[in-house]
Amino acid sequence: MDKKSLMVTIAVLGGTGKEGKGLAYRWANAGYRVLIGSRSSERAVTAASEIIELLEGSGSVVGTSNQEAAQGANIVVLTVPYSAHRETLESVKDLLKGKLLIDVTVPLVPPKVSKVQMPAAGSAAQEAKEIVGEGVEVVAAFQNISYEHLLSEDDVDCDVLVTGTSKDARTEAITLVEAAGFTGWDAGPIENSVVVEGLTSVLININKQYGSTHAGIKITGAKNK
Amino acid sequence: MDKKSLMVTIAVLGGTGKEGKGLAYRWANAGYRVLIGSRSSERAVTAASEIIELLEGSGSVVGTSNQEAAQGANIVVLTVPYSAHRETLESVKDLLKGKLLIDVTVPLVPPKVSKVQMPAAGSAAQEAKEIVGEGVEVVAAFQNISYEHLLSEDDVDCDVLVTGTSKDARTEAITLVEAAGFTGWDAGPIENSVVVEGLTSVLININKQYGSTHAGIKITGAKNK
Repeated sequence: MDKKSLMVTIAVLGGTGKEGKGLAYRWANAGYRVLIGSRSSERAVTAASEIIELLEGSGSVVGTSNQEAAQGANIVVLTVPYSAHRETLESVKDLLKGKLLIDVTVPLVPPKVSKVQMPAAGSAAQEAKEIVGEGVEVVAAFQNISYEHLLSEDDVDCDVLVTGTSKDARTEAITLVEAAGFTGWDAGPIENSVVVEGLTSVLININKQYGSTHAGIKITGAKNK
Repeated sequence: MDKKSLMVTIAVLGGTGKEGKGLAYRWANAGYRVLIGSRSSERAVTAASEIIELLEGSGSVVGTSNQEAAQGANIVVLTVPYSAHRETLESVKDLLKGKLLIDVTVPLVPPKVSKVQMPAAGSAAQEAKEIVGEGVEVVAAFQNISYEHLLSEDDVDCDVLVTGTSKDARTEAITLVEAAGFTGWDAGPIENSVVVEGLTSVLININKQYGSTHAGIKITGAKNK
């Protein structure tokens, strides 16, 4: 737990889902103050209790509404299903000015989730940028992680590609990627989010074709330190 | 060298470039009959001689025009710069019916080659499919490989994601991926080519940010045999 993490509050919107809960657990475990946001404050409070129990009482995790979580945080992480992506962003966008938004959303279009089908903006992250407007840095990250093992300290054998609207924003996000126990890579501008989000459909296809359940990717031939 | 490879002739169009020459070398080394195609038959003949020399005379490699190479092959591999993609395809499309086209093209738009910028069709491979029309299976592969080490038997630490218009086409292409010494993965339908082609810009960005020269990817958590 370093000093930096103590000064940063992370909101995890949609934090009652398995992705959000897993990330919240890992960041609270690393010493960050975490606000779990949900459309239902009640469910957010329950999720926060579960995480504190996993942490044996040692972490700072509070459940509240998406709006209160967004308002109280320095960094806002969006972990909702794509069907709730626009609505959730619209409901918090006025609370995001000057903050970093980390979008974890994968724009899967059921039933063909193994086929890349991006929204008109080019990717969910670019769509988020369009919705939140100026004054908010947007980063895409964590789309390729299998969430089953996040609620433990297990190693997850998958790197995290980070795209975003500025190098500073990507660097800040990579700090959180590493705090959550992953290797993060600066994968370039927000326009590259189509690759990171689309890779999830490729990995779903690999799981389907090869009978695996947790296909991931690792970057080779480069050192990130 | 198995019997199957002896019955298959591979045309490598644009085979005088380093990508094409490297792949041609590896397939000839694996026992395939290879036709090197180029706009200049003369340069194709020179490239073929170079490869035969590397193989110490043991391979079947012939240099000729792009058209003659396409006509004489069962499988046609396109390794031209994106600027020559459409023109080359137009010049051979009538010779491709009933064949498999493997498109290696990455639609980079200089000077911003680390930013994903796809053509209107969605990807170079989808554009190729639009140009060649019905009766030709199109697969995208090999976009993420660094070509410096192809002209040797060095291991290249990068997997090959294969997308394409049918599962049979992808399976056939994966046979050639393995013959060239790589691990190949069925990465799904042709619409997923945006991920594979775009990943090249992500890897270029990683090379730029982390001072590497050969960043690649490996699939984790799945077994392809």
